Amino acid sequence: MTATPALASVLERIDADLDAATDRLFDLLRIPSISTDPAHKADCDRAADWLVADLAGLGFDATKRPTPGHPMVVAHHEGPAGAPHLLFYGHYDVQPVDPLDLWNRPPFDPAIEETPKGKVIRGRGTADDKGQLMTFVEAFRAWKAVHGTLPCKITVFLEGEEESGSPSLIPFMQENAAELGADLAMICDTGLFDRDTPAIVTMLRGLLGEEVVITGPDKDLHSGSYGGAAINPIRVLSRIIASLHDETGRVTVPGFYDGVPELSNSLKAQWEDLGFDAQAFLADVGLSVPAGEAGRSVLEMIWARPTCEVNGIAGGYAGAGFKTVLPSQARAKISFRLVGTQDPFKIRENFRAMVRAALPADCTVEFHEHGAGPASVMSTANPMFAQARAALSEEWPRPAAFVGAGGSIPIAGYFKTELDMDAMLVGFGLDDDQLHSPNEKYDLRSFHKGIRSWARILDAVSR
Amino acid sequence: MTATPALASVLERIDADLDAATDRLFDLLRIPSISTDPAHKADCDRAADWLVADLAGLGFDATKRPTPGHPMVVAHHEGPAGAPHLLFYGHYDVQPVDPLDLWNRPPFDPAIEETPKGKVIRGRGTADDKGQLMTFVEAFRAWKAVHGTLPCKITVFLEGEEESGSPSLIPFMQENAAELGADLAMICDTGLFDRDTPAIVTMLRGLLGEEVVITGPDKDLHSGSYGGAAINPIRVLSRIIASLHDETGRVTVPGFYDGVPELSNSLKAQWEDLGFDAQAFLADVGLSVPAGEAGRSVLEMIWARPTCEVNGIAGGYAGAGFKTVLPSQARAKISFRLVGTQDPFKIRENFRAMVRAALPADCTVEFHEHGAGPASVMSTANPMFAQARAALSEEWPRPAAFVGAGGSIPIAGYFKTELDMDAMLVGFGLDDDQLHSPNEKYDLRSFHKGIRSWARILDAVSR
Repeated sequence: MTATPALASVLERIDADLDAATDRLFDLLRIPSISTDPAHKADCDRAADWLVADLAGLGFDATKRPTPGHPMVVAHHEGPAGAPHLLFYGHYDVQPVDPLDLWNRPPFDPAIEETPKGKVIRGRGTADDKGQLMTFVEAFRAWKAVHGTLPCKITVFLEGEEESGSPSLIPFMQENAAELGADLAMICDTGLFDRDTPAIVTMLRGLLGEEVVITGPDKDLHSGSYGGAAINPIRVLSRIIASLHDETGRVTVPGFYDGVPELSNSLKAQWEDLGFDAQAFLADVGLSVPAGEAGRSVLEMIWARPTCEVNGIAGGYAGAGFKTVLPSQARAKISFRLVGTQDPFKIRENFRAMVRAALPADCTVEFHEHGAGPASVMSTANPMFAQARAALSEEWPRPAAFVGAGGSIPIAGYFKTELDMDAMLVGFGLDDDQLHSPNEKYDLRSFHKGIRSWARILDAVSR
Repeated sequence: MTATPALASVLERIDADLDAATDRLFDLLRIPSISTDPAHKADCDRAADWLVADLAGLGFDATKRPTPGHPMVVAHHEGPAGAPHLLFYGHYDVQPVDPLDLWNRPPFDPAIEETPKGKVIRGRGTADDKGQLMTFVEAFRAWKAVHGTLPCKITVFLEGEEESGSPSLIPFMQENAAELGADLAMICDTGLFDRDTPAIVTMLRGLLGEEVVITGPDKDLHSGSYGGAAINPIRVLSRIIASLHDETGRVTVPGFYDGVPELSNSLKAQWEDLGFDAQAFLADVGLSVPAGEAGRSVLEMIWARPTCEVNGIAGGYAGAGFKTVLPSQARAKISFRLVGTQDPFKIRENFRAMVRAALPADCTVEFHEHGAGPASVMSTANPMFAQARAALSEEWPRPAAFVGAGGSIPIAGYFKTELDMDAMLVGFGLDDDQLHSPNEKYDLRSFHKGIRSWARILDAVSR
């Protein structure tokens, strides 16, 4: 399929304008908008101002909107009658840069670097998420430059608190629900499947976090004086953790698999076509054998199956040397990744009941909540999903796939729950982008083909 | 049984001299001989000088003996031909006093305080061990004052590094083995069974300490991206810990019970006669049900049965909040208390083999040693044990018992291994003495009757 003339001229314009687009991105990257650090409050504000000005320059009705935290940027642009209305989401805030001495260049002095894998844009926020959000802004710019207008109605919605827990997001969505309504939300904060294969994330696992604190004796004891007679909460906790999985790797919490769907044949076929190298995926972290449920592929394990993991454990003395303490308490942080329609609240209840039932005499347990969000499963029935998939397949060497994501991206769920709007997650990051780490980068190819991808998607969904 | 006239006059002298004895103890207590703190090196030296001078004043050939650390005090006094030769051990160094603000009076300004349970001597080192070592010194003084000599040959051996790991002890014993040889070592650093029941410790559990570090992935992973596919070392470690005991509370390490003796009927009868209140012992630390091996009494569990405890565990993120990490490593400190002739080296080997055999694919384990000492079981066949027991029974309201001690007191083992000498552990401390804690105390009754106890023991073993 060749590009329509309308699209082809936009793609040409994007190619010709790449250096200027990169310079504009550098301007934004130079603003150290670290949302979690109060010392950078003015910088966050400055980044919002920069984006408002840039979008206003493209003819958007762009405003900076105050919140109790960092401001939101909301911008609207009309489109032809009959064309869809899309909302584009990104975030302008970035992660802190510590430890600074591990950076090979100042994190807020971006530059193009040559690497064995090609040119990269190095700097904090390049991939997460300023480089990504600028892919759609630059696509708008090119379209506008060529055609004087945009092919569909567009709302841009950028937040400045994504890296600090998005405290203002849901209240702002609720207060501005009417203004933020659109046909579909496009979220640009994810990655390619691999260097050549674009991806639309259609399944996001949910997350239930629980902290379990088990108390035995009412004080730390000497293991010489009491060992053998007094219950040891580390042993109790270990026994409970050991009981959470059966020998086949299945989670034993009662009712846990209620609402866990089997993969559709079409998705299964797509995933098989991805040619995912499970051995390489594991070898990259020093492993060789998939540790999950027997009979499942690694992609199923990380995208489509629920899990129970222990994220942290502590009890007694674990520092240098040895102390013969028999501790009063032991604690573990346990998380469940959820899929399909698994109910986090029901699972929390069943998990807690299971732990309580396993407690021996003289032990008590306290639970602390650390979030409970269901999985997000996108309604790919909306024809824009197939259109976007085809458009991405045109731009990249390999066909685009509907994929899952093991982690949780709460914003997708919020668009559904707060605004009753489906979301499509398309992004151009790579696994080696060093998100949240020193020397974050974004491939120049991701930036360039990302802009072109959005132009193709705009064209595809508005035809 | 009434006291012999020789003994009766010594006991009278002890009673008459109690105030002066207490003043002498106060002098020693005022020297802040904290061995672990280099700032108090001169104070340790001063405490040794004080003891040398005091013993010399009693007619001992007393010397301060340098070591690479704090000095030893060694003193000799002749006795009648045919009488036994006893070595008395104590330590003049004390624990640090932090946190100072929890003390109700300056720790090195000792005083007699009235309490609901009677008069106590308050101050650092009162019970551990200056007050205890002065019980035998004062017994010598009283005997000498009344009879002009001592009833047996005596060597006093006092160290100044007991609270800082005794680094110089074994080398000093080895270099001075001939000089330190005696018929029996009397160690005064333990407690009464209860306020009215004196005790001779004849069984000390040994200790094997092991640290287990399990590694899965070669770096910390995101539990969203890898959870389900990557092995989690916390889960592996928990499973191993859970497998260390069976449902009856027995340790499952192969060969673990080799060398674990059953209690003799006479010891069993003695322990039953103690009227030990297991419920009160457990209730004191918030517990109600013995957690050890089924079918064993609490005293057996803590004195005569071997154990396996987890003293510390750590892995992943256990701080405030929640991090969805799937950690690379998890670690636990595990200790075994040993009895009878259990071989710590054999058990270490079997434990490590058991852990290695339980490792799933892709996991590795590292072990770190934290000591391996067998149990000490005293040869109570030496008639001096029965004599001392009878003598103690004369002094206190209830008969003395041969008891066990759950903790480890390495000095008893060293006398055997380095000097081939049996040891008898007799002391007058109580559970509420606040050893190693703020507001340490020693009951004035312990001090007074402790001195009288030693006079009775000297009389009994030398008749």
